[in-house]
Amino acid sequence: MLKTPYLLFLGDAADQLAAKVAQGIKDWRPEFCVGQLRLPGCKADLGLPEMTVEEARAAGAQTMVVGAANRGGVISSSWLSTLTAAAEAGMDIAAGLHNRLTALPHLVQAAERAGTTLFDVRVPQHDYPIADGRKRSGRRCLAVGTDCSVGKMYTALAMEREMRTRGMKATFRATGQTGILITGSGIPLDAVVADFMAGAVEWLTPDNEAGHWDLIEGQGSLFHPSFSGVTMALVHGGQPDALVLCHEPTRTHMRGLPHYKLPSLEALQELALETARIVNPDVRVAGISVNTAALSDTEAETCLREIEDRVGLPTTDPFRHGAGRLVDTLEV
Amino acid sequence: MLKTPYLLFLGDAADQLAAKVAQGIKDWRPEFCVGQLRLPGCKADLGLPEMTVEEARAAGAQTMVVGAANRGGVISSSWLSTLTAAAEAGMDIAAGLHNRLTALPHLVQAAERAGTTLFDVRVPQHDYPIADGRKRSGRRCLAVGTDCSVGKMYTALAMEREMRTRGMKATFRATGQTGILITGSGIPLDAVVADFMAGAVEWLTPDNEAGHWDLIEGQGSLFHPSFSGVTMALVHGGQPDALVLCHEPTRTHMRGLPHYKLPSLEALQELALETARIVNPDVRVAGISVNTAALSDTEAETCLREIEDRVGLPTTDPFRHGAGRLVDTLEV
Repeated sequence: MLKTPYLLFLGDAADQLAAKVAQGIKDWRPEFCVGQLRLPGCKADLGLPEMTVEEARAAGAQTMVVGAANRGGVISSSWLSTLTAAAEAGMDIAAGLHNRLTALPHLVQAAERAGTTLFDVRVPQHDYPIADGRKRSGRRCLAVGTDCSVGKMYTALAMEREMRTRGMKATFRATGQTGILITGSGIPLDAVVADFMAGAVEWLTPDNEAGHWDLIEGQGSLFHPSFSGVTMALVHGGQPDALVLCHEPTRTHMRGLPHYKLPSLEALQELALETARIVNPDVRVAGISVNTAALSDTEAETCLREIEDRVGLPTTDPFRHGAGRLVDTLEV
Repeated sequence: MLKTPYLLFLGDAADQLAAKVAQGIKDWRPEFCVGQLRLPGCKADLGLPEMTVEEARAAGAQTMVVGAANRGGVISSSWLSTLTAAAEAGMDIAAGLHNRLTALPHLVQAAERAGTTLFDVRVPQHDYPIADGRKRSGRRCLAVGTDCSVGKMYTALAMEREMRTRGMKATFRATGQTGILITGSGIPLDAVVADFMAGAVEWLTPDNEAGHWDLIEGQGSLFHPSFSGVTMALVHGGQPDALVLCHEPTRTHMRGLPHYKLPSLEALQELALETARIVNPDVRVAGISVNTAALSDTEAETCLREIEDRVGLPTTDPFRHGAGRLVDTLEV
């Protein structure tokens, strides 16, 4: 559990996309963000107040979140003095890149001296149990995709926001490093040991009030040969009452696998329901979330209508048009 | 890869069942076994020559395999002096229990001095890649079950033996600690990090000659909520050309989950084929393997006939009646 609020560290991000983690935090948890810290040459800008480490600390920042990646997806050596200064100033540091904060000796020493904590959110922080499959109270909605990286996280975050706006009780449950950094807690499911995957998901989505919804971030795809096992653990550990089918209509093949075509939304619906019914016979599909970022307004409208007519389920792009139509079907 | 031949260490096994790993090695790899070593009070007996560490070493033993478990499934402190003596005598030691050989300081020091190796086969020994889903040459058969622990490993081992007897090229591929100890190599799939599960299975079952069969040991069940993700990684990483459906007819509920009923063999066939077709559209079911250990001869015969009539697939108990009928359908 990361301490809030955050100072968002953008480093020397080469463009706005390189700071997409920070952008996600700003988009979905603006109340967590006291400011941004950019190094010389940084091309990303979140429009937050520019702050030094000292200014952020004075403004109450508890954690500096590394919200950017350099080309290799690693913590850059040119960032080290700033990270160390933040630790020395009494801030925790959180990052989800490929190399670990805790593998940087200078930083580790600084954090030890200051009594601050380094959070590598790619590294599981708990010993998760083996799943027991017991029926839990409260409700759960899981985003599943025709492929990886089709918008499952944004769909779940948008549904959480819409539910809260309507006064429903709802909690986004992060299962990947970006989601963990955005919301401050969760499980890095793809780094969990195989035997404990489903148990980690159960741990993440425990018993809750009858009307409460967990919006569970999906990972991978039941149809993606590299990561389908992780997805299966989410379906069975998550015990979903509702599924949202996520899709990116311009994708020509499975991500990273040029020899694999995407499944149809109908095939996803069939397999996701078939597997989810094993743990919850009453599971249903709430709707379809289409990532239309690559389409014009007109193209997006046509695409959404075509899918809705064909599959017969409420279909929307929650980032473009809001998650209202997905939430409508879940409101009691 | 463990060095053969083995001295099988039975410790002070309380009964024959406590030495089931050693029994498996004796049953399936008798040519690996030079002898057995039993401590006072041992109630298990494999009928192998009794040997001291020195006698086994003189007879050529390269590895002492811990083939028994005490009540807690851990390496007993009363075994330590024998394990240390074996390491000092120049033997590697292999074990698959819950605590690790490498966590025993005295043993580690002895092995270092003697230049021998300690193999904890529950611990992954490689950095496995992320699966790429590429079509591989050679053929693969995967055992899938209606539940955990229904005889998937014995089915694959029996099929390997039958294929080799017929002059077919065949390799059992172990995916759990018992299978690894029996055959000397494999992957401890349930201990692999989630992202690399399917890649580990691809690594285990690489390109091979056109007529060669990998017989892949199954794990868990697509219908077992605790472990279905591991099974899914086997289905997609294993890229099976053939499936064998494994079942235990007296099981009243999913193992460890009293609130979950077993699926029918028909439901298993449907879901296993549906998921396997994602990576291999030509996959088919070779037959059904029923573990009839709990039934009398007459009951077993009735049970097998009833299932074969109902499902319409060759049905046998490969341990009781041999794997001939399963292999018949795979012979070109």
